[in-house]
Amino acid sequence: MMVIMKQGHSQQEIDDVLRRLEEVGLKGHTIVGVERTVVAVVGSIYPELGDELETMSGVGSTVRISVPHKLASREIKPEDTIVKVGSVEIGAGKTVIIAGPCAVESEEQIMETARAVKDAGANLLRGGAFKPRSSPYSFRGLGEEGLRLLAQASKETGLPFMTEVMSVREVDLVAKYADVLQIGTRNAQNFMLLEEVGRTGKPVLLKRGLASQIEDWLLAAEYILNIGNPNVILCERGIRTFETATRNTFDINAIPLVKQISHLPIVADPSHGTGKWTLVGPVSLAAIAAGADGVILEVHPNPDHALSDGAQSLNFRRFRELMEQARVVAEAVDRPLLSAATEPTPA
Amino acid sequence: MMVIMKQGHSQQEIDDVLRRLEEVGLKGHTIVGVERTVVAVVGSIYPELGDELETMSGVGSTVRISVPHKLASREIKPEDTIVKVGSVEIGAGKTVIIAGPCAVESEEQIMETARAVKDAGANLLRGGAFKPRSSPYSFRGLGEEGLRLLAQASKETGLPFMTEVMSVREVDLVAKYADVLQIGTRNAQNFMLLEEVGRTGKPVLLKRGLASQIEDWLLAAEYILNIGNPNVILCERGIRTFETATRNTFDINAIPLVKQISHLPIVADPSHGTGKWTLVGPVSLAAIAAGADGVILEVHPNPDHALSDGAQSLNFRRFRELMEQARVVAEAVDRPLLSAATEPTPA
Amino acid sequence: MMVIMKQGHSQQEIDDVLRRLEEVGLKGHTIVGVERTVVAVVGSIYPELGDELETMSGVGSTVRISVPHKLASREIKPEDTIVKVGSVEIGAGKTVIIAGPCAVESEEQIMETARAVKDAGANLLRGGAFKPRSSPYSFRGLGEEGLRLLAQASKETGLPFMTEVMSVREVDLVAKYADVLQIGTRNAQNFMLLEEVGRTGKPVLLKRGLASQIEDWLLAAEYILNIGNPNVILCERGIRTFETATRNTFDINAIPLVKQISHLPIVADPSHGTGKWTLVGPVSLAAIAAGADGVILEVHPNPDHALSDGAQSLNFRRFRELMEQARVVAEAVDRPLLSAATEPTPA
Amino acid sequence: MMVIMKQGHSQQEIDDVLRRLEEVGLKGHTIVGVERTVVAVVGSIYPELGDELETMSGVGSTVRISVPHKLASREIKPEDTIVKVGSVEIGAGKTVIIAGPCAVESEEQIMETARAVKDAGANLLRGGAFKPRSSPYSFRGLGEEGLRLLAQASKETGLPFMTEVMSVREVDLVAKYADVLQIGTRNAQNFMLLEEVGRTGKPVLLKRGLASQIEDWLLAAEYILNIGNPNVILCERGIRTFETATRNTFDINAIPLVKQISHLPIVADPSHGTGKWTLVGPVSLAAIAAGADGVILEVHPNPDHALSDGAQSLNFRRFRELMEQARVVAEAVDRPLLSAATEPTPA
Repeated sequence: MMVIMKQGHSQQEIDDVLRRLEEVGLKGHTIVGVERTVVAVVGSIYPELGDELETMSGVGSTVRISVPHKLASREIKPEDTIVKVGSVEIGAGKTVIIAGPCAVESEEQIMETARAVKDAGANLLRGGAFKPRSSPYSFRGLGEEGLRLLAQASKETGLPFMTEVMSVREVDLVAKYADVLQIGTRNAQNFMLLEEVGRTGKPVLLKRGLASQIEDWLLAAEYILNIGNPNVILCERGIRTFETATRNTFDINAIPLVKQISHLPIVADPSHGTGKWTLVGPVSLAAIAAGADGVILEVHPNPDHALSDGAQSLNFRRFRELMEQARVVAEAVDRPLLSAATEPTPA
Repeated sequence: MMVIMKQGHSQQEIDDVLRRLEEVGLKGHTIVGVERTVVAVVGSIYPELGDELETMSGVGSTVRISVPHKLASREIKPEDTIVKVGSVEIGAGKTVIIAGPCAVESEEQIMETARAVKDAGANLLRGGAFKPRSSPYSFRGLGEEGLRLLAQASKETGLPFMTEVMSVREVDLVAKYADVLQIGTRNAQNFMLLEEVGRTGKPVLLKRGLASQIEDWLLAAEYILNIGNPNVILCERGIRTFETATRNTFDINAIPLVKQISHLPIVADPSHGTGKWTLVGPVSLAAIAAGADGVILEVHPNPDHALSDGAQSLNFRRFRELMEQARVVAEAVDRPLLSAATEPTPA
Repeated sequence: MMVIMKQGHSQQEIDDVLRRLEEVGLKGHTIVGVERTVVAVVGSIYPELGDELETMSGVGSTVRISVPHKLASREIKPEDTIVKVGSVEIGAGKTVIIAGPCAVESEEQIMETARAVKDAGANLLRGGAFKPRSSPYSFRGLGEEGLRLLAQASKETGLPFMTEVMSVREVDLVAKYADVLQIGTRNAQNFMLLEEVGRTGKPVLLKRGLASQIEDWLLAAEYILNIGNPNVILCERGIRTFETATRNTFDINAIPLVKQISHLPIVADPSHGTGKWTLVGPVSLAAIAAGADGVILEVHPNPDHALSDGAQSLNFRRFRELMEQARVVAEAVDRPLLSAATEPTPA
Repeated sequence: MMVIMKQGHSQQEIDDVLRRLEEVGLKGHTIVGVERTVVAVVGSIYPELGDELETMSGVGSTVRISVPHKLASREIKPEDTIVKVGSVEIGAGKTVIIAGPCAVESEEQIMETARAVKDAGANLLRGGAFKPRSSPYSFRGLGEEGLRLLAQASKETGLPFMTEVMSVREVDLVAKYADVLQIGTRNAQNFMLLEEVGRTGKPVLLKRGLASQIEDWLLAAEYILNIGNPNVILCERGIRTFETATRNTFDINAIPLVKQISHLPIVADPSHGTGKWTLVGPVSLAAIAAGADGVILEVHPNPDHALSDGAQSLNFRRFRELMEQARVVAEAVDRPLLSAATEPTPA
């Protein structure tokens, strides 16, 4: 950390900073520049130190130099993390497709969709049993019945499945059924939930928060990693900006940037990232071209009658067409689609 | 709701919309304009209808006309809601001051602070026992021990107290001790937690989410109101914008706007809304001048040594000075400071 | 336009709205719904009408139904606009590459770069002679000398060139030299400049403003189209959001969305859209996969010594490598790179 | 400046940085920490240096330590700048009120409004002759005729007047008539216009850009100061955020923050900062309470019929009522309203 003194500071103020550093077991080196005096801090710095020092008289600002997320960083672990879900490897250089309805609505709907996405080449099934909704008056999912139907669809098709967990209370229940636990954008900084899903040891798909900077997102991953669970998959799903023509602004920059600074796999969710099915195709291809480890897609037998997120869901025909285009683009960037799973997931 | 057809739509497409509306028990009136044809929808509209209709061929867009938050709206309940906490009334035309440390750190720290804020005229005590932190490596609070110390400080000073609850698992525990349950910004759309704190019947202070539009925030309040708990206090605490010179952007517009569209009381949190103690004073006065029902302030015996949020905390002297200014501004807008509580809170 | 009355409005207030509409030559149809009464307005609506009506007693809100940008919209002109620059066609289904240094620094630098980008397959040359800089203390370009050097490089390589014009005063000067006039992000709503470059009849590349919604951007294009110049090329270059890890947030959603609602060609500027050369490659490929009509790239012989934007510029080797990847991705989405220009541009 | 090396950098990479610094006349001091090595740069740093160094191998990031805006900073000039407009002093501890219509529409309208705002206690008149409009189809002002009418109203009432200048071409014309030249939000980084208005030597009111960080805004002021014109008045008018319930988000934090870091006066524009007249009153009082040197208000004889911005304009009665409240709040914070001008402005 660097402590930048105000112009016109006194020697006393410098001395106070140095003494304060000593109190907490750190050491400061004073560097006198033309315009500024800076104190370089050496030692094991704790997160609040900067805020504390900035309240001291004579201190202008402080600058953190080391990154706060340790375990998620490539500086600690340079090689890619590969998360295994059954026989599916995420982060191993192939593009993984995760598809299914926003919410499980009925046995017929989930079975039909699971078969359709499997036939078109998807590697994992997704579907919501517990649904976070902005309004209490919206459809909020089938709960455990939804989990049972997902498990049945998974068993029949051999596709492992992913579903959201919304509260610490449901973690054990969801973990009993699901292959991947999803943390939604509104829980992206629900730290107690992060630790609880971390404890299950199961792969966790961690969506970026609506207002999360990339650093916040990696620090959220840190909560899961720090509890001893290395199986974190990051998911870019759009951030909230001033643009209202789309539901969210899909941050394409985040895909290559996260790959550069972190070893964790990252997948794209263009359904939420755009909010319009007419944009889902082009943005999926963009994410693949930018190096995403996978794409999550909302697919519904009849999006016009979906109980949630119909506007951003693909029907079966459009999903098959997109898979064909995805295949070609993924090969163009030398990250071919992972061959569809052909065997049932282990129980 | 209005369904706006694309230019060049066919009669068949209009008919499809009308039939779809009938299927779900609604009625459509077609209005043919010079540039556009519009279908006005009459009946009890459910939240997803717009999304569904927008996926239909020939439909350009839909426009919701009625507000989605019912119970929080002045249209349903024109008169102000007054939330009572012990003998303190929030929303009754007087300005309420809530003060205390960001986190409870020790018996000495909380007792000393409680006495200081009471002596300066605060009406409620605040303090964190369970702390959400962006990094897992930061101080995360004393837990139940913190609750006990808050209760002790509350008992001695007679100030009711407010503290954050972070997870459904702690709701009962926190409710056993606290007079007001606080929902933090990172849980602003943690819908399960909202319902759970709602069930306690205790007053709930609901912070605005970092990325919450005012409508999202009122819909979050709706979760609590809908469970049967009318005691919701809204709290503006700044939103995330592109400006990095301050920790958040305090949305002063939200204060009068919320007062106009909702009957719920709204208080301001300039400590988080600015992130710098040098700005807390002016923004507190601004919030009072704009009509806030109260102000929440972080106060610490020695902010330079606070375990969290020291940079935005006032020391005792600065808090007393601010109280003097607040008193004058509150009177200028005819919303005088509520006289300090003089009796112990009921158990 | 729809005028949505408040709940509890009086008949008198409806009558006032109807009379006001008549005053300005419009007609209103009253629709009484269960929850709301709405007045549908028929006739030629002017932009301020909504604001005016919203100030009237009893009026809750108004909703515009027709799009405000007429000439830029596909509703007016369904077929794609193709902008011709010499023999280069932008918007004709092939991917166009525009490359060159951020700023012209010297004859050697621009000649060397022009040859390098031509050899690697670029179709147009770019380079700044007048540079907008956030700080008055930064390098602000060579002015007319820069234009002369660009013209010389253009003549030698046969690549038409594009350069920014910053003020109405330089429009004639820049138009004398340049093949395409560029409007920078900070002038994206400098309406006088938009009209002035429009009057030259030359192709205009219009960057999106840092804070422009897509509708603002299309309305800015409307200024140029409305003056009688159809040769507008839109350029997505990132918007300002809360994310600070990248210089801007490249809005990938905007590429397919603009293609859907407007007939104008759109190109991507990943150099400014990311601000880091390590991200330029992946985001360029993403933009191509999403359907961009072209990509603008900053290329410099020695980015470490560039006088501006070195951090986001590619050196020659990296540019050549990116061109190879771009070629493959462009073919994968059936929008092959346009063959490099082989003839000198017409004077 | 601090250059922070990547972990695992080589000695060769450090040496390259030191040599590069020497090449440009600077000196580097290497500091080896536990986690990181840092090179502290001493000497006269130019703006691009950081970007350049960040492209070098082994360099992780750079941190600027001195502020880039020199002339606007309190570090250079600790005492407040007072801008004089006729007999009106802005920045001298009293609260100044600037009022008038958004656009001049007719002689009757401007004369009537000028008398009304003067009688209610305003110190300066405002009014638009050249209007920037998002759409080319909106009313764009009366041009020079508008300036003449403003001058006439100014002469009759003795109120100096302020009006916007939109292009370098109109600077001389507008400066011939107006007492204060206003730079609008869309020209906030139109650097050529900034220098041109700077050259007139007249007071300049510089609105913050829709997407301007406070640092960008002070750097824009720097363009005017650097040309030799010290008479800059900053104007906070709201920024663009994700919140759509208001036209802009008025950044109340900016008022005290700018007062702390800059010596320039700052005024508030709650009309644009909120976009709704029902919010203008409370936010005006908030700005005064937060320490603004003045408030700009849109006032119109009949807002329902205004040709622009009617929705955010006050009628005469509401303006008078607000003035009464403003007087009380301004006194509460010991920044009383400046007594209304009683003498004609000098020609």
